[in-house]
Amino acid sequence: MSTQAQNQIQQAIEAQKNRQFYAAYPENPKAYAEDANAKGLETFQKHLNTDFSGLAENPHSSRVGEEVSPYMMVGLGVQYPYYEAEDLVAYARNAWSAWKHTPVEKRAEILVQSLNNVSERFFEIAYATMHTTGQSFVMSFQASGPHANDRAMEVLSLAYQELTRFTRSVDWVKPMGKFDLQIKKDFNPIPRGISLVIGCSTFPTWNTVPGLYASLIAGNPVIVKPHPKSILPIAIVLEEIQKALTAAGLPANVVQMAPDTLSSPITKKLAEHSDVKLIDYTGGSAFGDVIEAMPGKITFTEKAGVNSIILDSVNDAQAVFGNIAFSACLYSGQMCTAPQNIFVPEAGIATAEGHLSFDEVVAGISNAVKGLVENPKMGPYTLGAIQNDLTVSRVDEAKKHTTVALDSIPVPHPEFPDARMKSPVVMVTDAANAGVWKHECFGPAVFVIKTANSAESLKLAAASAAELGAITCLCYTTQDSFKAEVAEAMNAAFTPVSFNFTGAAFVNQHAAFSDFHVSGGNPSGNAGFTTPEYVNRRFVWVGNRYA
Amino acid sequence: MSTQAQNQIQQAIEAQKNRQFYAAYPENPKAYAEDANAKGLETFQKHLNTDFSGLAENPHSSRVGEEVSPYMMVGLGVQYPYYEAEDLVAYARNAWSAWKHTPVEKRAEILVQSLNNVSERFFEIAYATMHTTGQSFVMSFQASGPHANDRAMEVLSLAYQELTRFTRSVDWVKPMGKFDLQIKKDFNPIPRGISLVIGCSTFPTWNTVPGLYASLIAGNPVIVKPHPKSILPIAIVLEEIQKALTAAGLPANVVQMAPDTLSSPITKKLAEHSDVKLIDYTGGSAFGDVIEAMPGKITFTEKAGVNSIILDSVNDAQAVFGNIAFSACLYSGQMCTAPQNIFVPEAGIATAEGHLSFDEVVAGISNAVKGLVENPKMGPYTLGAIQNDLTVSRVDEAKKHTTVALDSIPVPHPEFPDARMKSPVVMVTDAANAGVWKHECFGPAVFVIKTANSAESLKLAAASAAELGAITCLCYTTQDSFKAEVAEAMNAAFTPVSFNFTGAAFVNQHAAFSDFHVSGGNPSGNAGFTTPEYVNRRFVWVGNRYA
Repeated sequence: MSTQAQNQIQQAIEAQKNRQFYAAYPENPKAYAEDANAKGLETFQKHLNTDFSGLAENPHSSRVGEEVSPYMMVGLGVQYPYYEAEDLVAYARNAWSAWKHTPVEKRAEILVQSLNNVSERFFEIAYATMHTTGQSFVMSFQASGPHANDRAMEVLSLAYQELTRFTRSVDWVKPMGKFDLQIKKDFNPIPRGISLVIGCSTFPTWNTVPGLYASLIAGNPVIVKPHPKSILPIAIVLEEIQKALTAAGLPANVVQMAPDTLSSPITKKLAEHSDVKLIDYTGGSAFGDVIEAMPGKITFTEKAGVNSIILDSVNDAQAVFGNIAFSACLYSGQMCTAPQNIFVPEAGIATAEGHLSFDEVVAGISNAVKGLVENPKMGPYTLGAIQNDLTVSRVDEAKKHTTVALDSIPVPHPEFPDARMKSPVVMVTDAANAGVWKHECFGPAVFVIKTANSAESLKLAAASAAELGAITCLCYTTQDSFKAEVAEAMNAAFTPVSFNFTGAAFVNQHAAFSDFHVSGGNPSGNAGFTTPEYVNRRFVWVGNRYA
Repeated sequence: MSTQAQNQIQQAIEAQKNRQFYAAYPENPKAYAEDANAKGLETFQKHLNTDFSGLAENPHSSRVGEEVSPYMMVGLGVQYPYYEAEDLVAYARNAWSAWKHTPVEKRAEILVQSLNNVSERFFEIAYATMHTTGQSFVMSFQASGPHANDRAMEVLSLAYQELTRFTRSVDWVKPMGKFDLQIKKDFNPIPRGISLVIGCSTFPTWNTVPGLYASLIAGNPVIVKPHPKSILPIAIVLEEIQKALTAAGLPANVVQMAPDTLSSPITKKLAEHSDVKLIDYTGGSAFGDVIEAMPGKITFTEKAGVNSIILDSVNDAQAVFGNIAFSACLYSGQMCTAPQNIFVPEAGIATAEGHLSFDEVVAGISNAVKGLVENPKMGPYTLGAIQNDLTVSRVDEAKKHTTVALDSIPVPHPEFPDARMKSPVVMVTDAANAGVWKHECFGPAVFVIKTANSAESLKLAAASAAELGAITCLCYTTQDSFKAEVAEAMNAAFTPVSFNFTGAAFVNQHAAFSDFHVSGGNPSGNAGFTTPEYVNRRFVWVGNRYA
């Protein structure tokens, strides 16, 4: 391995072990070259209405591409080669042997190099992400650029440790009394087989690169099946991986892209193929459950979850409402980590400035949301645009069954007049009305749920996490004993808790190298970024013995 | 953790990392106290025809016990309290909280202590094993005593590393330009839930303790469901774990035993219980497949496999035949690691002393088996007795469809005239006769299979491993290129290969701390002793954040 790659891996290993703050790639756009933004925009614009040509091409008879910018409400017009499932698998199979026999150290070097090369294209990827997901520019840059690269580097460093954790060969000597029994042994991490990584529409690289890089470093060929509405960002990443592979004399088909369309999906056929052994999936629970139940597959899923806020007692109520408002508004609630259900005791909450009634809490949250979205310097850039029309209709449906404390506010985007914008609706309902709040309502909506007391709030939040899954939980309490109870009960449902977040700490954000993302212990998913088993299960230790 | 336990864990960690020879507990009975054997026998005999009283008892209305000595062909008469599945789960649930909140270091200390205490009872366990499994005394001693304890120690040391591999708390500081964002975080390995460990009749402790100790150290309560015909050995182990728990002020019900009968099995009901989250299983493939497919469970299985020998070319033919004969005779082939199918080219094989025809190879193997079993100092003690009548009838059925080169030879046991003895049958068949050889024929039987050449031998062995599963493969070849081909093809079916074993190296034996046992990559099982994921999947990392 090159010294540079070795150093990058080593830094990541240390950070991950100690769970400290670490950024392998700076998240601030200003840390990059002065002209990088302009160049990235220009390169992005050159992709529009063309055939994407960055990937190595196998024989194909058609192209697909139906991405639409949620900001401009027009199609991007980028067309990608379409391949049948059987052909993709055959190409992967052919490319496998060379990759399998590439030493782990060399694989690591190539993959680290690909990440470094991807970082040269962060701005281009940011615009591609913005105009497929609807994320704001800054979020697009961070999530699809440095944050995604950091998650990939986290995976590489953990996998590198795991792939090298046992000696590769040993002279095994057993004293037998009159003589020694001597056996030479070797121990080999054998890759499982073809890996399928199924992406989602909202985080096309962040949710895809961990499985992609984990499978790759373990020696598996990978087929990436992006969401039909969000292909370009990951296509650019795959282009850089292919370039790093071919520069090292390896077949480009070690990674392939399998674009499809909403009307003719290829995912199930690929997933069910007997040669596909590993499946990473980010998306809805219904299809995720199908993936998890497929016999003979090892699966890593991130599905839907319902995240809770437990509001018990606070010091600075305005700071709390502001924090909740930001978390609810960020990317219009289209984050798997966004809070949905805010449990508030019917008697209200204690604050350092006195008691607040339930209605005052509802008003406080609503006003904070209103203040944020109506702030022209903050609103449009926090909300971003809505990726999918369905997200809007889902919220409209929920409104029928609740009391609307704050309806969606028209938020014009200063740059994109046609942008599909939707500010969060704040709805109020009773705990008994579980038919409304006790399922995922993905998008710009929060429910303030009236409970008997904080004990009931916790009970409902924990039960919801265990039954429906949860990726995050946010709790505000000034009572140490309640804090401990919340940690105990939510952790028992394998849900992490963030306590008393105000200021710049937001429950939506999971930092690479420090925060695990999805525990794998509740229905929100069966795996997480990045635990040892996330990488270990992609290869098999096999030892040979030589007398 | 006590210094002694710490040292024991540390030594095991080092050995495992380096895959060196290491024995935490000596395998030679002579390494133990001079009177230990006599005392162990006496203690074993005191169990006969009594109610087993070593385990903490919960309310129960009946007892069960139907163990039969394969040496004496009489029932042991030991009776164990019987509990309903729902009650066992309720007791486990109640005991869980105290165990979950016991720090990892304390759990490790208690569990290491239990192993040390078990080692004081190795001889008693050996006789209990002998008279339930039919293993010879020495194998009973080694497999159920030191080798089982070593596997448990291997699990503890690996799990201890994993449970402590990330920092438990950190002050996370992210520079934000004008200020630092500071968040306190903790990271907790949360146990999954109630663990069910399902034992087998032939290796009642060796196959049970890895899952048992792995679940325990991760903080899960465990219910052990022993095979109805082989309860006493593991009952003694569980007694020592309970004693170590109660000595530390913890509930005995952290581990429970769930004995049942062949006619009224409790296993499926326990496995399907929604509170049972982890299942370890050793046994037949049919029920193993049912276990693996149960939704919402994390399973660790060792099922049936068909192990091959590929005979290509040898130096010392007699040494090879002797080694094969021993591996086939050891415990009458009732080992999951025993070879079954011996692939030999129709043209025969090259040896250092000249060419041997196919028929000469068959004769050589047959004669070696005959010589071993007819040696009164070796035969009975290598073979042991047959655990189950079905094993005998299975072999008799296979004889009808093959050419019998060596039939079973009556082998009287000098100490136990009623012992159910059966020496291996050597059968010859063509590769085309896959209906006979291409499934598991567990017990004293080997098939010598005539192939076109060694390339076909390898093809058949690899395909068999991929389709039916295999835990071991033994290959004899003097050709380095063929050696590499065999390693490549068998490892691709996730099957380890032992090359050119003669003398005291036997394919059946997998050494703790060095050899992985079951790869988890083919149908012989989905997990193995002991890989990181074998322990990691029993708990979930959950982090909390405190602003």
